[in-house]
Amino acid sequence: MASSSVRKRIIAVCQMTATNNKEKNMRTCSELIKSAKESNCMMVFLPEACDYIGESKAETLAMAQPLSGDLMKTFCNLAKENDIWLSLGGIHEQVSDEKVHNSHVVIDSNGDIIAVYRKAHLFDLNIPEKGIRLMESDYVLPGQMIPPPIKTPVGNLGLSVCYDIRFPELNLTLAKMGADILTFPSAFTYVTGAAHWETLLRARAIESQCYVIAAAQTGAHNNKRTSWGHAMVVDPCGNVVAQCSENTNIATAELNLDYIQNIRTSMPIWQHRRNDLYRTLKPKKLLEDQQAYTFGNAVLNSDNLICKTTNTVAFISQNSIVPGHVLVMPLRHVSRLSSLNSEELFDIFSVVERVQSAFEECYSVSANTVYFKDEGKQLHIHVLPRRPHDFPENDMIYDHLEKHSETLPVSSSSSDVIQEVKVLRSYLSTS
Amino acid sequence: MASSSVRKRIIAVCQMTATNNKEKNMRTCSELIKSAKESNCMMVFLPEACDYIGESKAETLAMAQPLSGDLMKTFCNLAKENDIWLSLGGIHEQVSDEKVHNSHVVIDSNGDIIAVYRKAHLFDLNIPEKGIRLMESDYVLPGQMIPPPIKTPVGNLGLSVCYDIRFPELNLTLAKMGADILTFPSAFTYVTGAAHWETLLRARAIESQCYVIAAAQTGAHNNKRTSWGHAMVVDPCGNVVAQCSENTNIATAELNLDYIQNIRTSMPIWQHRRNDLYRTLKPKKLLEDQQAYTFGNAVLNSDNLICKTTNTVAFISQNSIVPGHVLVMPLRHVSRLSSLNSEELFDIFSVVERVQSAFEECYSVSANTVYFKDEGKQLHIHVLPRRPHDFPENDMIYDHLEKHSETLPVSSSSSDVIQEVKVLRSYLSTS
Amino acid sequence: MASSSVRKRIIAVCQMTATNNKEKNMRTCSELIKSAKESNCMMVFLPEACDYIGESKAETLAMAQPLSGDLMKTFCNLAKENDIWLSLGGIHEQVSDEKVHNSHVVIDSNGDIIAVYRKAHLFDLNIPEKGIRLMESDYVLPGQMIPPPIKTPVGNLGLSVCYDIRFPELNLTLAKMGADILTFPSAFTYVTGAAHWETLLRARAIESQCYVIAAAQTGAHNNKRTSWGHAMVVDPCGNVVAQCSENTNIATAELNLDYIQNIRTSMPIWQHRRNDLYRTLKPKKLLEDQQAYTFGNAVLNSDNLICKTTNTVAFISQNSIVPGHVLVMPLRHVSRLSSLNSEELFDIFSVVERVQSAFEECYSVSANTVYFKDEGKQLHIHVLPRRPHDFPENDMIYDHLEKHSETLPVSSSSSDVIQEVKVLRSYLSTS
Amino acid sequence: MASSSVRKRIIAVCQMTATNNKEKNMRTCSELIKSAKESNCMMVFLPEACDYIGESKAETLAMAQPLSGDLMKTFCNLAKENDIWLSLGGIHEQVSDEKVHNSHVVIDSNGDIIAVYRKAHLFDLNIPEKGIRLMESDYVLPGQMIPPPIKTPVGNLGLSVCYDIRFPELNLTLAKMGADILTFPSAFTYVTGAAHWETLLRARAIESQCYVIAAAQTGAHNNKRTSWGHAMVVDPCGNVVAQCSENTNIATAELNLDYIQNIRTSMPIWQHRRNDLYRTLKPKKLLEDQQAYTFGNAVLNSDNLICKTTNTVAFISQNSIVPGHVLVMPLRHVSRLSSLNSEELFDIFSVVERVQSAFEECYSVSANTVYFKDEGKQLHIHVLPRRPHDFPENDMIYDHLEKHSETLPVSSSSSDVIQEVKVLRSYLSTS
Repeated sequence: MASSSVRKRIIAVCQMTATNNKEKNMRTCSELIKSAKESNCMMVFLPEACDYIGESKAETLAMAQPLSGDLMKTFCNLAKENDIWLSLGGIHEQVSDEKVHNSHVVIDSNGDIIAVYRKAHLFDLNIPEKGIRLMESDYVLPGQMIPPPIKTPVGNLGLSVCYDIRFPELNLTLAKMGADILTFPSAFTYVTGAAHWETLLRARAIESQCYVIAAAQTGAHNNKRTSWGHAMVVDPCGNVVAQCSENTNIATAELNLDYIQNIRTSMPIWQHRRNDLYRTLKPKKLLEDQQAYTFGNAVLNSDNLICKTTNTVAFISQNSIVPGHVLVMPLRHVSRLSSLNSEELFDIFSVVERVQSAFEECYSVSANTVYFKDEGKQLHIHVLPRRPHDFPENDMIYDHLEKHSETLPVSSSSSDVIQEVKVLRSYLSTS
Repeated sequence: MASSSVRKRIIAVCQMTATNNKEKNMRTCSELIKSAKESNCMMVFLPEACDYIGESKAETLAMAQPLSGDLMKTFCNLAKENDIWLSLGGIHEQVSDEKVHNSHVVIDSNGDIIAVYRKAHLFDLNIPEKGIRLMESDYVLPGQMIPPPIKTPVGNLGLSVCYDIRFPELNLTLAKMGADILTFPSAFTYVTGAAHWETLLRARAIESQCYVIAAAQTGAHNNKRTSWGHAMVVDPCGNVVAQCSENTNIATAELNLDYIQNIRTSMPIWQHRRNDLYRTLKPKKLLEDQQAYTFGNAVLNSDNLICKTTNTVAFISQNSIVPGHVLVMPLRHVSRLSSLNSEELFDIFSVVERVQSAFEECYSVSANTVYFKDEGKQLHIHVLPRRPHDFPENDMIYDHLEKHSETLPVSSSSSDVIQEVKVLRSYLSTS
Repeated sequence: MASSSVRKRIIAVCQMTATNNKEKNMRTCSELIKSAKESNCMMVFLPEACDYIGESKAETLAMAQPLSGDLMKTFCNLAKENDIWLSLGGIHEQVSDEKVHNSHVVIDSNGDIIAVYRKAHLFDLNIPEKGIRLMESDYVLPGQMIPPPIKTPVGNLGLSVCYDIRFPELNLTLAKMGADILTFPSAFTYVTGAAHWETLLRARAIESQCYVIAAAQTGAHNNKRTSWGHAMVVDPCGNVVAQCSENTNIATAELNLDYIQNIRTSMPIWQHRRNDLYRTLKPKKLLEDQQAYTFGNAVLNSDNLICKTTNTVAFISQNSIVPGHVLVMPLRHVSRLSSLNSEELFDIFSVVERVQSAFEECYSVSANTVYFKDEGKQLHIHVLPRRPHDFPENDMIYDHLEKHSETLPVSSSSSDVIQEVKVLRSYLSTS
Repeated sequence: MASSSVRKRIIAVCQMTATNNKEKNMRTCSELIKSAKESNCMMVFLPEACDYIGESKAETLAMAQPLSGDLMKTFCNLAKENDIWLSLGGIHEQVSDEKVHNSHVVIDSNGDIIAVYRKAHLFDLNIPEKGIRLMESDYVLPGQMIPPPIKTPVGNLGLSVCYDIRFPELNLTLAKMGADILTFPSAFTYVTGAAHWETLLRARAIESQCYVIAAAQTGAHNNKRTSWGHAMVVDPCGNVVAQCSENTNIATAELNLDYIQNIRTSMPIWQHRRNDLYRTLKPKKLLEDQQAYTFGNAVLNSDNLICKTTNTVAFISQNSIVPGHVLVMPLRHVSRLSSLNSEELFDIFSVVERVQSAFEECYSVSANTVYFKDEGKQLHIHVLPRRPHDFPENDMIYDHLEKHSETLPVSSSSSDVIQEVKVLRSYLSTS
């Protein structure tokens, strides 16, 4: 039994029926969070689409906000007010007028966004001869990275969303990276939920030897869409230790990290894998940078990262003044250039130089602006490729840079930016 | 969702591995109760045999205590100290040197015993030609009554024990009598548990439209006996809403009585029963007296009840001075004879008279002692059959009566008393 | 393992998607039966509504036929041609223009109807304040009897239909009457099926220690109605030993009656029941006559039975010439009056006399016609109450009687007949 | 439904309780096979350890035979006599006095061994501080290859054994290579079986969109070991379509390959994988040679293959005369050298030359013997490294070669041979 001297790792898994009424959904979320708080929970898990479920693709796109929008502010405030961690299982993160990410966002009890995972597996079904066309990718931009599990007070949390559960590659990769807990917040369709939901959740727990927490949408969201519900928590032996009843409610469970260790010690499946026979599962795109880089209170969008060295990172600005606007900053947070040691100093300007070269090659520019303010805030250097006539008057760029701020919180990357990052990375990769 | 103004009906279901070490088992129970208290539970459900699991029949009998013993005192104290209700799923209640009851005892948060159900279905298997003899009835005396569900702050509780789950007659009878919650505290054998446990618990919930709470023994108690575990709570729709992980621990769930009503309203199975085609399930032995009669803080053992009229009850004393010592008392609790109205007055003495007559017929006595003290405590009249030389000196009986108290808590009824009650009832039945 | 010298008790459980196209449904049934035959099955179990699923109450009523209709003839032929037993899990048996029975019909491999069970539990839900009204009883007449299990080559078969599964009273009653196999042919709604289907089927098998065979409708029958499917066979230990995949198909299983005995011997739950505490489940309306009375090849409708003595039965004719037309016949089938012994002879005419008296009291008639033909067929005596002017000419009744035949197969009883039987029984009951 | 013109793909999954009595086990296997034949099965699946379960490591090793032993002959005869395919879920294949392979062997209806998979994942648990040491690898040599699915009349069969089920890498690799059916023949321990068996089998079916067939040992094999049983067939949607009851018996199911296609078409998970984010699962050791090479009736042990070109294969002899005895043969089976075309002729002698060179480097020999008989049987060339004094007289090698035969059936590879193959491959690899 848990020693009573340590605060228990109690979590709440939630079930709700989101509609296209955002205010109502938010009231429900707020009540669920309060109910969890009353039950001494450290962390609350809300389902995919806890923000809203639109009645059409157009409505879905129209209602989306970037992570910097009001919706996330409200959630951050709820986390802070209730002194509780939140997993928002899936938010419609506006990328453009045409696209959203399906983003699983984790907020800590200070109200800060700690991690964002963008759903990687999309359900596309196109059978023209039968007139079937269900293309999630028509309006959702898939995530480009598997973030490593994040540290939370209830354990290391691996992030997924809904349909991801069908791909053991993902949960095994997360488990290998150190996850104690796998999350599958969902809006599972009723029919496939009835057929597969519990079996898959339990199998993921067993084969990964992790807790599985799966918040869920339930019931009829509108005339066309009904979800399976059955939000649950599964222990690493595969037992359903908590499950919501019908309708909107929470279920709570205490997580026991020692129990995970016992399971893993008594059945050391990771030692028994035959990585000589099949390929070892690991994230292909796990740059070393997948740790969360922060800038002020903001978490930098690792999708935007274009280069990382021992002491320095460079990333496309989330609030770019010109296309290809890059920020370079030391990994060690300092407020003054003079605080950097000589090695860091050398490294940061090497990166600045490499970025400039990349711009020249990549954008065929012959001029760049390098700018930084040594003003006591977190040190960062702007590098901007300059095109003829990009500003009516050359100095105007400084006005923009004065006012520039790398907005909090993390915003998503548009497909343009993703493409840009991809190209710049190729120019900057050293080996 | 539950309104936050009402305290939530949170309960804890427990799992443990009792052995023949009573002190250790009690420490475990105490820790489980405290853990439940920390999680804001109103009531804790401990499994069958939470007192001990002996390694032999002889040891099992030797370790048994009556309900008036120290063990129950300790449990009553734990309930009081933690301000929490307890369901002790099965206590070895000493009846004689040869027999115990397997008694499910409910204690309220004041530390008072509120109800006792003695396991009615015993597992007897006797196949002499194969040398198989597993006779629970060799040392367990089966219960003689189905007590009606008892009111608790978490809902109306129907009591059962373990093997009772195989007999839908019992749970349907309890549901029909008003149970919101069915309980199946168990020490289920491993093999039948793996095969039947979850399916039966869920089916009982579904067909009765009640919550099911099933505390459980788990793991190896000794070299010969291992239990299945999987203590769980099932909601009235049949979903496992909470389940313990391996080993000793608790799982908590919030009970929602409104949800039971919704289920029953939308599928009114009790209106659809065809009681014209099959016999209506109801307790045969449900005397009207099965409501709990209290005497001071004590709950009267309804097994001991021999007669009940509109205003009066008579029962065999649990602390009898002579064989056949009967107490007669008004249903309405009064402290003075003068507080009775004339109808009650007439009724109580009619019963006294009938008891006297019964004694004469039944015990072939020609004298009885009738005695009561009009002293301001709860009024009750003693009636005792007198045999020649039953006391060395005639007056000594009054000394005994002066010191007599109907001890708290409820003790079980020996087979002698049960026989006595049976006979007296037959003499007293009116129709 | 089954000895190979005995033919294996292999059965097929079927799954299909009936619509309002009777011909198509029949083709499907026919293919399922042939597929089962190819797999060496002795018996095939078709689901409830294997005849059709109407799109409205009106259509459902309009499409119904009596058991004497073409539909049953086709099924009887299929049984005969394929030399296979059939369980038709639920046929719309026409009772009147307003009502049907939901009748589970068993046909033997000779193509004869062996048993009919009319669904006893109907789902009625009426919540006027919410505008909810789902009343099965609006157009279905509930069955009035629990037929005892019938002997088949695969074991003793207890009959139920769909919603009956929620009432353990029924399956326990059937098990007590000797069922080896319980049947729950269904058109279970999708949502309750997902929630309860498998759990209830498995629990019924475990608690009754019988095989459970549950044929099922599956998928969308029309725009308004979708069924759960998951037709399955459960063994008496509660394991799903065969289950259909999605869509229309069969699953086969071998039934092992020795295994039932092993289960019952090693866990003798019927010996452990506490029939002193709760009422013993048994059919209230199980007249001794519930054995199947046959008349030629016809099975008499036991709903029509009005009187039974040691040697004689009397029942309302299924093909009555006048209201209250009763047939009286000896239990021992004889072709000549002279074959009866004196006791039987006395008994049969006593019954005739009692029927006549009942007519006089019940119908206020003063004349009756008694008629029989001693012609070498199965002996039976007609008794008909005579009303003034019931026939244009008095002798015409004999023309009718000459042509009268107690039609095969069993037809259902209209509500009028049921009422008639009820009244006559009350006049004829002796005690 | 399956068209009746095509023979149905009916298979039987078996359950048994093997002991250390080989004869008795074989009788049981024989009866199960006959029972399956009676039920029109095309293929029978026997569990892991269908040959025997020893009571100690020493006994287990002592009872093992090579695949060329009597045991396999008996099984091959059973397959032939019954005209049925066999999957022997796990045979103790003798490698040396100290080691066995746990080999899943498939025999076709001609009685020929078609494929051998040697269990790749072994359960090793070594916790010295707790005195726990359960090391399967103490006496089992793990397999070194994932054979591609094999074509059978019931579909493409992916081979695994028992504990392999915990590693989704394996079943996903097999599914990717074209498996229709995954097999997990097992002797699952009781406790982990109760906890994980059904959930993992169903999840493997769902996530691979394959049928899963899992034969199983059940019950007590000896005083120390008891297996879970529950042999079953799961359809690609995750439904248990057939399951054995307790004890020794079979369950049959019809496999529907069209249904697999429907499932895969309506949920195209293989198109949705994100092989850009995680590594694509594929067999590392899948040489192109993993197709089964046959030599006469023998299947060559692909573990022994050391080189493959467009027209030629070379492999270590399974019946070597000297260490490093290699056979080189054309991929196209011919009986005469003159039947080879010029390209094949050139290729085969190029390989012979390369093998000779490899011998010189690898074994530091300066002489080799090349030998072949152009006698009308399947053409093959022996290449043997010669060491000084390897034969008392030089010519004796030809006596040995005359008598040499590449024994049927496949024998396993000892650790020595595996090492030898590894080294020679490295010398022969071209790139």
